[in-house]
Amino acid sequence: MFILSTDRYVEGIKNMYNVRENFLDLKTEALKNLEESQFENKVDEKVLPVLDIINASNDYYTSSSCSGRIVLLEIPVIGDKINARFLGKWHRVITFDDLQLAISHAEKGLLWLLAQSPVIHVGAKSVSSADKLLKIAVSSGLKNSGFKSAGKKVVVEICSTERLDAPVGRDGRFFCNEEYFSLLIEIANNIIEKSYFKLQRFENELKKRL
Amino acid sequence: MFILSTDRYVEGIKNMYNVRENFLDLKTEALKNLEESQFENKVDEKVLPVLDIINASNDYYTSSSCSGRIVLLEIPVIGDKINARFLGKWHRVITFDDLQLAISHAEKGLLWLLAQSPVIHVGAKSVSSADKLLKIAVSSGLKNSGFKSAGKKVVVEICSTERLDAPVGRDGRFFCNEEYFSLLIEIANNIIEKSYFKLQRFENELKKRL
Repeated sequence: MFILSTDRYVEGIKNMYNVRENFLDLKTEALKNLEESQFENKVDEKVLPVLDIINASNDYYTSSSCSGRIVLLEIPVIGDKINARFLGKWHRVITFDDLQLAISHAEKGLLWLLAQSPVIHVGAKSVSSADKLLKIAVSSGLKNSGFKSAGKKVVVEICSTERLDAPVGRDGRFFCNEEYFSLLIEIANNIIEKSYFKLQRFENELKKRL
Repeated sequence: MFILSTDRYVEGIKNMYNVRENFLDLKTEALKNLEESQFENKVDEKVLPVLDIINASNDYYTSSSCSGRIVLLEIPVIGDKINARFLGKWHRVITFDDLQLAISHAEKGLLWLLAQSPVIHVGAKSVSSADKLLKIAVSSGLKNSGFKSAGKKVVVEICSTERLDAPVGRDGRFFCNEEYFSLLIEIANNIIEKSYFKLQRFENELKKRL
């Protein structure tokens, strides 16, 4: 494991390198938040090894992450994401029963089934270190990765292209038949499996190249 | 209109500024490609004013663009994008008849209906000029924008978050009923309308801030 005590870690870097104070302050805060989230079991286990490797580097810190997930959402009207309600959220492959149980909580509005590949936000010490991480991510298959900011804060978003964004029902009932229902689950699970495969490949590449 | 003769334009910048030769070479090539594409009517009209403003700046050139589109794809097996076949592609809102005609060309495989918001790739002279463009894009509602590279080439991808990625049929037939069919069209068209609205807002912001 790469997790160190936050204070000791940051003190060590300060002594070793002449690093911008701002970056270290942000890293200190991010690591504390990560520790708290881990304590509350809010961090996906599958993404933890990747976060540990990135945070063990002097050049980066992770500010948020998701290993990939399947979501059932209820949206009052088309486009109104602000009032969306999560009926189901799974960081794993799902079954017919999982989805059916989640749908039973639907009330009013449009039902969307989403499958989302991993997302990791990383603060970087410099543009060149961020570019290095970006290249590792893209060569690991996380091809939708990019910088979200390169001003005072340098932030990289690591993510992939696979996704499902499908409207599947309205006001508590499904639009389609059982064949379609099964196909949707197959596609969503396929995206989750690919996500884990890519995360694993990213972890291996980080070990070699960071 | 902001389109100038490519040679005269580049010569002008070379004289005025001490710009990296590499950036100007890339810009010259990109502008020539854009001229050719326009001549062949391959550039969406709705995105052209935005491209013209960006290309008129000394700091940027556009390398590819799409104003937003609706697509009907046929994919042999789940995940096999390489062998995907376009049955329909529209850079506008669509009707029930548009989609039905496209589906009539389906043969074998999974049918996906996609609605995609605008995408513009921009080469930038420096990281700071790229960051400036990124901020204009994000504040115009194109919130999924980011750098794709910040090494030798600095490339910004300008895009939005709205999208539809829904499997809708298999082997030439639709999974769902007419109500669902209409809803899909409504959602896809809503994404296209939002795309044009955001492009317009981006154009206005560029005029003010570039």
